[in-house]
Amino acid sequence: MEGSDPRIEIRLPLWVAEKLAHPACASTVAERARFAIDLAALNVAHGTGGPFGAAVFERASGKLVAAGVNLVLSSGLSCAHAEVVALSLAQRALGTPDLAPFDLELATSAEPCWMCLGAIHWSGVRSVIASARDEDVRAIGFDEGAKPADWTATLRERGIAVTIDVERDAAIAVLRRYAASGGEIYNAGAGD
Amino acid sequence: MEGSDPRIEIRLPLWVAEKLAHPACASTVAERARFAIDLAALNVAHGTGGPFGAAVFERASGKLVAAGVNLVLSSGLSCAHAEVVALSLAQRALGTPDLAPFDLELATSAEPCWMCLGAIHWSGVRSVIASARDEDVRAIGFDEGAKPADWTATLRERGIAVTIDVERDAAIAVLRRYAASGGEIYNAGAGD
Repeated sequence: MEGSDPRIEIRLPLWVAEKLAHPACASTVAERARFAIDLAALNVAHGTGGPFGAAVFERASGKLVAAGVNLVLSSGLSCAHAEVVALSLAQRALGTPDLAPFDLELATSAEPCWMCLGAIHWSGVRSVIASARDEDVRAIGFDEGAKPADWTATLRERGIAVTIDVERDAAIAVLRRYAASGGEIYNAGAGD
Repeated sequence: MEGSDPRIEIRLPLWVAEKLAHPACASTVAERARFAIDLAALNVAHGTGGPFGAAVFERASGKLVAAGVNLVLSSGLSCAHAEVVALSLAQRALGTPDLAPFDLELATSAEPCWMCLGAIHWSGVRSVIASARDEDVRAIGFDEGAKPADWTATLRERGIAVTIDVERDAAIAVLRRYAASGGEIYNAGAGD
């Protein structure tokens, strides 16, 4: 059993803080997608996690609110997906678990998995931009879970805007680079 | 944008550590369910979060590995559901994001929401015991998300055992007590 002060802690790698020290506004959907894909690429290059990046922007202004990368292996926590990290850091920055009043947009380098769709639902983020498709992620071996047949419709029915396939090829290239370099595919039970 | 050391931190309330200072084995499914429901009830009584508790046990021995409660409002993070907290603390205790080799069982005071089903999928936990049903949680106003039509079948297809309705009435009583006492229903956009 955990000791007398059990806590969960997820820290961004230092290189992310350095990258974010001079954040630019990202005014277009493509710029926001490229920012998330760039985080994914850097996460692979630095060996700090899986090939996934995400960032939260003010939808109207494009101002960066928070960024995240996949930290499952470095944190030892299977919930530390890029979207969960970015949304959580946005909530921390804004001081509330409900982002709905801020009209924010999440850019993610790959379509959200089963868990992250639910995390998006609870977060209050109002718009999602996705780059690689679910099938692109499964193609390198990740088990994305039992997602709704049409996840875009499922989010839209809940008032969340969705834009897919933005800079998809660039995002696929990052996934393939991770797989080709022997990056760990950390599905549950993979080591059994 | 976050400062130079962005991090996500979730801490259990002090009363949980006190409760866990003398953990007993819970050998039966009903004992494990009651432990999770007791955490939910104490979370309401202490005013430290929503009416949800969860705990992770070794399936064979019943030894407690980790416990969690809903900490959405106290942590300011919408991902801080009891299941995510308990599974994350189990991963921290065991030093790995993949619980599959340990043959663990998650007891949760209410059926997992959309996000937590995905979190269970990624965690490697091999068995789930649920007390209150999805409809019981929705009845007090929580929007549990777009879950599969039969979530038990969806988990079982993935090799995860599921036992439902264990001590359901006791879990419903905690949900109703929370709602009756004016507990916040923290759906995204609820404050809009």
